[in-house]
Amino acid sequence: MELVFMIPLAGLAAVFYAAYLAWDVLRRDPGTPEMQEVAGMIFEGAMAFLKRQYTTIAIFALITAVAIAIIVGAVSDGVKDIIKEGSGGNITIGYSPNAVVDHWEEGVLTGIAFLVGAAASALAGYIGMFIAVRSNSRTASAATRSLKEAITVALRGGAVSGFLVVALSLLGVSTIFFIYSAVLGNPDAIAPFLIVGFGFGASFVALFAQLGGGIYTKAADVGADLVGKVEAGIPEDDPRNAAVVADLVGDNVGDCAGRGADLFESMSAENIGAMILGVAIYTVTQDVEWIIFPLVLRSFGVFATMAGLTSVPFFASDDPNQNPMTPLNYGYYIVCALSVVGLFIATIVMLGDEWYWFFFCGLVGIATGIAFVYITQYYTSGAWRPVRDIAEASRTGPATNIIIGTAVGLETTAATAITIGIALVASFALGSEADIPGVGGFTTGVFGTAVATMGMLMSAAYILAMDTFGPITDNAGGITEFSGAPESARHITDSLDSVGNTTKALTKGFAVASAGLAAFLLFSAYLDKVKERLSVPLNKELPIDISDVDVFAGGLLGAMLVFLFSSFAIRAVGNAASKIIEEVRRQFREDPGIMAGTSRPDYARAVDITASAALREMIAPGVLAVGMPIVVGLIFRYVRGDNDGWLAVAGLLMIGTITGILLATFFNNVGGAWDNAKKYIEAGNLKTESANPGAVEVLGKGTDAHKAAVVGDTVGDPFKDTAGPSLHVLIKLLSTITLVMAPLFIP
Amino acid sequence: MELVFMIPLAGLAAVFYAAYLAWDVLRRDPGTPEMQEVAGMIFEGAMAFLKRQYTTIAIFALITAVAIAIIVGAVSDGVKDIIKEGSGGNITIGYSPNAVVDHWEEGVLTGIAFLVGAAASALAGYIGMFIAVRSNSRTASAATRSLKEAITVALRGGAVSGFLVVALSLLGVSTIFFIYSAVLGNPDAIAPFLIVGFGFGASFVALFAQLGGGIYTKAADVGADLVGKVEAGIPEDDPRNAAVVADLVGDNVGDCAGRGADLFESMSAENIGAMILGVAIYTVTQDVEWIIFPLVLRSFGVFATMAGLTSVPFFASDDPNQNPMTPLNYGYYIVCALSVVGLFIATIVMLGDEWYWFFFCGLVGIATGIAFVYITQYYTSGAWRPVRDIAEASRTGPATNIIIGTAVGLETTAATAITIGIALVASFALGSEADIPGVGGFTTGVFGTAVATMGMLMSAAYILAMDTFGPITDNAGGITEFSGAPESARHITDSLDSVGNTTKALTKGFAVASAGLAAFLLFSAYLDKVKERLSVPLNKELPIDISDVDVFAGGLLGAMLVFLFSSFAIRAVGNAASKIIEEVRRQFREDPGIMAGTSRPDYARAVDITASAALREMIAPGVLAVGMPIVVGLIFRYVRGDNDGWLAVAGLLMIGTITGILLATFFNNVGGAWDNAKKYIEAGNLKTESANPGAVEVLGKGTDAHKAAVVGDTVGDPFKDTAGPSLHVLIKLLSTITLVMAPLFIP
Repeated sequence: MELVFMIPLAGLAAVFYAAYLAWDVLRRDPGTPEMQEVAGMIFEGAMAFLKRQYTTIAIFALITAVAIAIIVGAVSDGVKDIIKEGSGGNITIGYSPNAVVDHWEEGVLTGIAFLVGAAASALAGYIGMFIAVRSNSRTASAATRSLKEAITVALRGGAVSGFLVVALSLLGVSTIFFIYSAVLGNPDAIAPFLIVGFGFGASFVALFAQLGGGIYTKAADVGADLVGKVEAGIPEDDPRNAAVVADLVGDNVGDCAGRGADLFESMSAENIGAMILGVAIYTVTQDVEWIIFPLVLRSFGVFATMAGLTSVPFFASDDPNQNPMTPLNYGYYIVCALSVVGLFIATIVMLGDEWYWFFFCGLVGIATGIAFVYITQYYTSGAWRPVRDIAEASRTGPATNIIIGTAVGLETTAATAITIGIALVASFALGSEADIPGVGGFTTGVFGTAVATMGMLMSAAYILAMDTFGPITDNAGGITEFSGAPESARHITDSLDSVGNTTKALTKGFAVASAGLAAFLLFSAYLDKVKERLSVPLNKELPIDISDVDVFAGGLLGAMLVFLFSSFAIRAVGNAASKIIEEVRRQFREDPGIMAGTSRPDYARAVDITASAALREMIAPGVLAVGMPIVVGLIFRYVRGDNDGWLAVAGLLMIGTITGILLATFFNNVGGAWDNAKKYIEAGNLKTESANPGAVEVLGKGTDAHKAAVVGDTVGDPFKDTAGPSLHVLIKLLSTITLVMAPLFIP
Repeated sequence: MELVFMIPLAGLAAVFYAAYLAWDVLRRDPGTPEMQEVAGMIFEGAMAFLKRQYTTIAIFALITAVAIAIIVGAVSDGVKDIIKEGSGGNITIGYSPNAVVDHWEEGVLTGIAFLVGAAASALAGYIGMFIAVRSNSRTASAATRSLKEAITVALRGGAVSGFLVVALSLLGVSTIFFIYSAVLGNPDAIAPFLIVGFGFGASFVALFAQLGGGIYTKAADVGADLVGKVEAGIPEDDPRNAAVVADLVGDNVGDCAGRGADLFESMSAENIGAMILGVAIYTVTQDVEWIIFPLVLRSFGVFATMAGLTSVPFFASDDPNQNPMTPLNYGYYIVCALSVVGLFIATIVMLGDEWYWFFFCGLVGIATGIAFVYITQYYTSGAWRPVRDIAEASRTGPATNIIIGTAVGLETTAATAITIGIALVASFALGSEADIPGVGGFTTGVFGTAVATMGMLMSAAYILAMDTFGPITDNAGGITEFSGAPESARHITDSLDSVGNTTKALTKGFAVASAGLAAFLLFSAYLDKVKERLSVPLNKELPIDISDVDVFAGGLLGAMLVFLFSSFAIRAVGNAASKIIEEVRRQFREDPGIMAGTSRPDYARAVDITASAALREMIAPGVLAVGMPIVVGLIFRYVRGDNDGWLAVAGLLMIGTITGILLATFFNNVGGAWDNAKKYIEAGNLKTESANPGAVEVLGKGTDAHKAAVVGDTVGDPFKDTAGPSLHVLIKLLSTITLVMAPLFIP
């Protein structure tokens, strides 16, 4: 228990650090009155969206919490304590004869944990977003002075969100664990099972934030483009377009609030899953360190991230031509290096004599995070072959742009799958080498994958800060343009914006990788829950046989769920976009002064209509995601047989996850690559082919090749910002919902 | 053994029937001299392609056969006889103490089976294609007289291919089984394991035919369009375009030879897999019926198909406006009805007292086939919502066409997965009800899925006849256009061509479904092989635990293989198309007479260049498909541990299959839907929106909406004709290659 003090220390330090960063950003110059006016509209739009969204979430979360309490209370048999039986080489981890937590109490505690998880995630998203939309005009203002200051403001603004997400997840999980174990007097071994509702709550909010937010942002984007550029013939971001503020708000909604909730869910669910896996080792060794180790490891990550973030301004130079990615990368290296130190301390102090095996597992996780940062850059940045191939294919029109883009996108899944595969097998193999008397290699191996996952997530706050850097700089660019700031400022915000695209893309890669590692870990936690209910000792393997027809059919349905969910998400963007198009058309029609530039369009109404359309359109995919695992489990249990329900759900979970990882990778990367192929052409890198060097012309903006690339970019928008990120959430939601609803499928 | 005479009878009857149909087609009027000239060029091009392709196949097949013989001979321990041990309720299906087939003999027999399978598939493809490209001008000529005659000629021409595929697969499997068991004096129980090479040989040829053919057909199509329509500004199918014959040849190469080899592989591999599953029951009951039942069932299918095909002309009317789908559908109903009768006879005579359970399993299979025919029509025909949605989305440009098309394509996987899932679970549940003393419900259940698969494939010859109907009528349309035949003939070939698109699409749906059912069945066969090598009794379950890290990682790699293979296949089309574009440009440049219409382009050279480019471009995906399962098996075995190789391969196989089914469905259906959305617009079904009915205009050919739909159609081409169909082959290839190469991964 030596390092347990680190948990509240890190949680509170993160909160105070976020408060300091927020204060630091807010005290800076908010820019010219023109800048403040635009920023004000974005702020109002964003808050209006959040208000509507969080009201909806609050209502549905309350209903769901009550439903969970009733279902779990009615169906469960209560929770039995987990105890060691036998000795020497013949230890089994069995159960106490009677339930120590009554089934109704279990239901109520699970429902409360759900609400706490949902509230913590929502709070982190709200405050983070509040600061992010306050940082944009300050970044625009800073850009009129220096690149260094602009980077600092944008990154600090983004870091508020990053630290709050990490802090509230850490404090949330540790507080509820402390209350459900020590305060309520339940055994440490069963408390992790009582808090799975927290993970489901986080998933629930993430579904709204990422799916609803993703639909919102792309409906506004596509709608604004189609009605403005195509129909009315006015340029992008023109103030006469009523949808333009909705579009700027959308960037924050998807990338800041959405991705924040996504990683909040990753950290919380994986943390709880890792604690559940620690229970088996704790029961044998009676060292509670095995349960709280994941929390401690993350606490070290908080301090490593603080140091890395603080160092960034020192690497930024005063040269406005410096690539802003350079200081961000240096900061990331510092975070990783300090994470290794923290990992070393945590493992050597807490994990007994064979600590070094788990230290290696953690290293695998940290290395995986770094690998994903580079893989994503390779596939989505204009500096390498993939994006250039797409740009070249644009010469022959939109069809070849789409065909080659699809080929590139499909190809990117290889690096992802191989990296995740190696990480899993390596961390399992290393973990299973740890020789803890009475605990089998299988149990320590699975715990090893949990350590790798937590190791990777140590840098989550930094990654999130870089991610939110994206919409802040994007908005800053828009504000600079709107407000007629000097050319030099535009140069700086352009360069920041382009880096922001890269950081947004790499966060998605990081999120996919964490979802992949999490899947294996959470699946093991699901099996522990099944073992508990079927009274199979925790240290016995419970094979899920893929050649069993129910597992196979469940797997087929799981893979199908991923495809169908993506279809619904993509279609939702189209439907919501048509609503915003109608509204902008109506405003043009009813007030001719808008087109003439004499009266201002009603931006707030466009924001509100988009928000309500996005929330309505997320019903179908949302119900599908939450409902299908439950329906499949019930159908197989009651039509096929008592033991076929949880088997089919297991197949659905695992194969849905694998398919989801690959499809999300495809959507994220193909969208990013199309986007950057367009930027590559706009930057003048594509030239006509000619034997005569004097006749070579740049195929830039306005050429057919550029138009073809714009088609690819537009197609990629709902892929990379709606379907892909929503699939991360879906993958984890499947795990948390089946963990909570397990009593429904298990006899 | 009562019905065993049916097998040679049906095989020979099918051959003679095919010969009769060929004679009947060839004796008909080959059309005007102009028709014959074009048809002659297509014929020469097709034969040139086949010559080049089959030469390549022959060389590689010989090398592979030798490699198989050496690897299996060197690595295997030989084959032990399978014998019943114990009695009453405690029967195990074990192995004889010593090998009855020496390991070198096993290697040589497997290599020979491989060659026979490859040769039989190639022969069926060659003759079928020969007749198909002879039928096109005869169909064109018949269309100048009546719709009824045109349908008859096209369907009979297609049926030659269909019957030869079925006959050669049936005769090939049964002959080699007879030789390897009775003639060589090996026990009946082990002969099915000796002939798995036949399935791999069929897979090997199918890979060339479907992947190489798919690359060829779409490279020619895309290349001809880009260089002709886009660059030279000449219309589609213009004789001045040197690539135009290659394009017409391509239709035959992909749909006739490719799909024929695809279904040859399905039938052969599934037949052998079903025989392997029958071994366990045979060993207990000592009734060899359980092994040869699949062959007998298919024999009944041959006669049912003959009756159905013969009946089609009676349902065709003399009215040129009759929908040609109507007589084809009636013929299919007759095939299905007679298949039920054949299934009834075969099960009641051969499968003992509990025959009716397997009769029900077969019904499930027949119903699944019918369901797929309708599901595909719903999603890819202009009469229903999905295609109309895509057409509507074309109003706002190519991007929305692609976005909504993608959403529709992803959605189509739901019906596919649910239908396959229900078919598998239902046939397993029904089969496991059969109470055969000493045989467990698991064994009879898996055999039930085999019966369902064979039931579905009873109508394969009819489905294939309808499929080859597609390229024949497509070519007939081209010939009619080229040769300036009367308008009435063009009307008939147009209506046949549109039906041909539907029949091609539904064959793909049928192929996917059969691959899905086959996967489960062949996986069970793979496990039987593993059990044999590990000396686990055949009637004991051998769980493949998906929560095992090696199975999970293998699964991740299997799903990735499907994505990467698709990427390679799609990219190959682009690369090969650039070769044909260069050649056409060269011809235009070197002989200005071509553009002026005074000299004829060198069509044969364009065909040859496309053929060699297609074969070169299939190396990368081909090596990936064949190499990856072997490499994964070896790496896991030698890096992770002796038992991890076959476990990882099992994961790769199963999860690769599930992902492959869904991705193939997506590619096939999205391509078909885009194609028909374009046709829907061309037919004048899309109109401008206006409150004033007098102002409504048709958005037909040449409008922006139509151009957007053309982009979707072009994108869909490599999806539906290269990537999708190649994935069917990949799925089955994974099964057959792991069956043959199993000794490499199993200690």
